[in-house]
Amino acid sequence: MTARKAGRGSVVLLSGGMDSATCLALASRAGAPTHALTILYGQRHAREVRSARRLARRYRVARHVVLRLPIAPLLRSALTRRDVRLPTRGTRAGRIPSTYVPARNTILLSVALGYAESHRLDAIYLGANAIDYSGYPDCRPEYLRAFERLARLATRAGVEDDWRIEVRAPLLRLSKREIVELGDRLGVPWALTWSCYAGGREPCGRCDACRLRARGFRAAGRPDPLVRSVRASP
Amino acid sequence: MTARKAGRGSVVLLSGGMDSATCLALASRAGAPTHALTILYGQRHAREVRSARRLARRYRVARHVVLRLPIAPLLRSALTRRDVRLPTRGTRAGRIPSTYVPARNTILLSVALGYAESHRLDAIYLGANAIDYSGYPDCRPEYLRAFERLARLATRAGVEDDWRIEVRAPLLRLSKREIVELGDRLGVPWALTWSCYAGGREPCGRCDACRLRARGFRAAGRPDPLVRSVRASP
Repeated sequence: MTARKAGRGSVVLLSGGMDSATCLALASRAGAPTHALTILYGQRHAREVRSARRLARRYRVARHVVLRLPIAPLLRSALTRRDVRLPTRGTRAGRIPSTYVPARNTILLSVALGYAESHRLDAIYLGANAIDYSGYPDCRPEYLRAFERLARLATRAGVEDDWRIEVRAPLLRLSKREIVELGDRLGVPWALTWSCYAGGREPCGRCDACRLRARGFRAAGRPDPLVRSVRASP
Repeated sequence: MTARKAGRGSVVLLSGGMDSATCLALASRAGAPTHALTILYGQRHAREVRSARRLARRYRVARHVVLRLPIAPLLRSALTRRDVRLPTRGTRAGRIPSTYVPARNTILLSVALGYAESHRLDAIYLGANAIDYSGYPDCRPEYLRAFERLARLATRAGVEDDWRIEVRAPLLRLSKREIVELGDRLGVPWALTWSCYAGGREPCGRCDACRLRARGFRAAGRPDPLVRSVRASP
């Protein structure tokens, strides 16, 4: 491997939703090249990937990789299996929601880690959120710290060089309202993002992701440009 | 999810090589159901998968999943890219070999973790070895401890239940000779395993994997049944 200087950029795990779009906006501002990695792990629909492609173009990423990982049949979740019902009434406290995908963030972060190491990048951005997704074990701050520790031990970074790969989850402690406000300040093109779990032509408005998104915009005191643009189109 | 009792079995990351075959033999002896997970991440050849299938049949696993993860184009390694030369002269001390695949074990273990959580298993077997693969950062004992810690934080196991998913790397501190001796005691069918990186009809005898394997059998004072059976077949 040629001895390029380490610490040259970041990779954003870009699902196409509001949170990862905001992460992409933050990463792009950092100056160093930004890569985007969209991993389709067998969600019920692939509507989000269109949003991810549009966002990647808008932010002129150095490279956008869309990767299909056929892991859905292995993992039990409402997001990957049709025999598990999608929730529409929020989550009871202390319970893990049925949309939780076993080890999902660990799988996504692992692939991003291999990508970051291969391209000598020094940061991985993940739109994890500990407020709205408090039921997901792999959205907890202590989980992310553990992954970062693992990343130091797992890779060439930290063995041969003075090089670290950081895991950045800048939205971890923000409410959906605060994410809308932050995204507004950064100029995130909300109309290009997609949140709905159901994946029809329009957001269903009923699933937990739609409800959470609507609540965020309502709390921020502004309309959701996606809903407006979808309604406006014939 | 139905409330089945946790701690009901294990999943073995089965590449088809000597080490994972020995892990499969150990896991099978434990009594609880054994699952096997073979992940093709774009190695230069898929010859090993035939070995993995034969081993899974021989050990009558509860389920053998063969999963193709198209991650090779993302990761720089001699095992996944044709423009990186395969090593044939061993590894210099303190250097990471070109056959190292960035974040490979983390990716494999993450998928196994999701599988174990989905099937309520309590152990993952990995044939990692810190002696022969001392140059690989993700074969170090401290790496595996860090992954186990991550696994506790990453999953439903340890949040809702009194349930832990262990990472077992029983060969970690064994030499190749000791692995041959252990496998012999367990009755591992070496002729069904495959180690060669090159993936022709016969082992090439020159790559690091072949050389390591040959050294192990030589040190254990016995011939390699694979080499004998390949030579005997027309």
